[in-house]
Amino acid sequence: MAYDGVETPHGKVDRMLGGAATYIGLAASYFTSVKIVAVVGDDFADADAELLASKGIDLEGLERVPGQTFFWQGKYSADMNDRETLRTDLNVFAGFQPKLPESYRSAPYLMLGNIQPALQRAVRGQMNGVCLAGGDTMNYWIRDYRAELLETLRGWDFLLINDSEVRMLSAEQNLRRAAAKVMDMGPRTLVVKRGEYGAILFCRDCHFIAPGYLLEDVFDPTGAGDCFAGGFIGYLARQRAGAGIEDLRRAVIYGSVMGSFCCEKFGVDRFRTLTMDEVEDRYREFKACTDF
Amino acid sequence: MAYDGVETPHGKVDRMLGGAATYIGLAASYFTSVKIVAVVGDDFADADAELLASKGIDLEGLERVPGQTFFWQGKYSADMNDRETLRTDLNVFAGFQPKLPESYRSAPYLMLGNIQPALQRAVRGQMNGVCLAGGDTMNYWIRDYRAELLETLRGWDFLLINDSEVRMLSAEQNLRRAAAKVMDMGPRTLVVKRGEYGAILFCRDCHFIAPGYLLEDVFDPTGAGDCFAGGFIGYLARQRAGAGIEDLRRAVIYGSVMGSFCCEKFGVDRFRTLTMDEVEDRYREFKACTDF
Repeated sequence: MAYDGVETPHGKVDRMLGGAATYIGLAASYFTSVKIVAVVGDDFADADAELLASKGIDLEGLERVPGQTFFWQGKYSADMNDRETLRTDLNVFAGFQPKLPESYRSAPYLMLGNIQPALQRAVRGQMNGVCLAGGDTMNYWIRDYRAELLETLRGWDFLLINDSEVRMLSAEQNLRRAAAKVMDMGPRTLVVKRGEYGAILFCRDCHFIAPGYLLEDVFDPTGAGDCFAGGFIGYLARQRAGAGIEDLRRAVIYGSVMGSFCCEKFGVDRFRTLTMDEVEDRYREFKACTDF
Repeated sequence: MAYDGVETPHGKVDRMLGGAATYIGLAASYFTSVKIVAVVGDDFADADAELLASKGIDLEGLERVPGQTFFWQGKYSADMNDRETLRTDLNVFAGFQPKLPESYRSAPYLMLGNIQPALQRAVRGQMNGVCLAGGDTMNYWIRDYRAELLETLRGWDFLLINDSEVRMLSAEQNLRRAAAKVMDMGPRTLVVKRGEYGAILFCRDCHFIAPGYLLEDVFDPTGAGDCFAGGFIGYLARQRAGAGIEDLRRAVIYGSVMGSFCCEKFGVDRFRTLTMDEVEDRYREFKACTDF
């Protein structure tokens, strides 16, 4: 969990609630009960904890320690397909050793946000029994922590990363072959995020291509990829009987839907008012715009 | 019609049949009868004319004049999303004034390849009575021949261009608003091509988003956009009763299918062996990979 400073062509916010756990949790909370593990400093605002709690998110695993919360500042390009990081202060995140409360350990789904692969693996190891586990990673871990990441990936059922990361991880330019190589590393389900162009779901012997939802206005893309992940895993978690391929396809669309809402306002603001009826309306609109 | 020299990461061909009319005509010929208007020099090979004729393409409007055929040479980047033009020799194309044979003038559909907007308008003016007309253009005409292009667009029913061209033509970054502005210029149907990411069909009060077909191997993207256009207009022409919105959606998918085949071999080579059964198989595969 983090505070972010963000500038886009539509405006500038110096400090607002952010972080992968925040976005994933908020998006997933529309579909299932969510328990967050994260660390914040003593500057963390009650109002921000209250927003999460108001969505029914369990904060027992939210550690509060002396110091400042992780801070990230960035500026988006005119077309918002690129961003420049202006500042990253790890603060209390630097010493973070995630510990799962006892009540979290039997959850059936585990979604690991983008942090050091060894920490992700340690969290996975704290889970009792069988759960469907997976997560996100990024270019930094792929390049500089490769062995550690590969060991972590062996224990994952699913992986959600973007197209350039799939190519980097596999050292293969063609996306279909790149996906096959990555699935050989462990995850039997791979979701390749392509930003405004949608996502591709790869399973062992099939794939599903979803275009991106076409937004009238993109105010701030921060967190959209995490909201995609939250919608994806949240929808899967709602399918109690175990998810089949049809559920996985719908999970990708719900992921796109949650990512699209995220972009409509700065930071998490859209989730303050977003209703499940709006989510279902957009899902139906998505279907109407892509059916042939 | 042209000869092209092309280099991609998969190989290099010094001289092969190319040009918008060639690709559009070949792709459309799988759906409808095609009549080509174009100019070539006295270097134009009989074998190339025979390939077109073998697909039932009418070449009465193919003008042969003394001199060399238009020549283009380019080199693609490693990921094939970019290309550099190494050479453009207009040759006999420089003085081209397209003239429709009498037998062409009552055709119900007219697809204008990317040439000077005034020439496109002159061809449109040679058609008798009502036909569904439209075509392609490019950044050069948008930037340097804007008034001429706008006059041409007023007479078009449909326009097929890529996303950066839509943004340039409308001076609007957001694609939905950009599309609305372009449709105000004349064409009531706009197809925005997005390369490997698919295409979006815009009509007055709805849109349809199609992802790109995921190819195992892209050998040479040259002509893929023109094959998209050929598949699109060819499929529409096959619907004798006048195309509705459902037909337009399917036309976009057939466009993507024809564009995807084009990339599988160098130049027009894939069309030497491509069968309608393969086209229909890929259409069904497209549906299976995108349905939810």
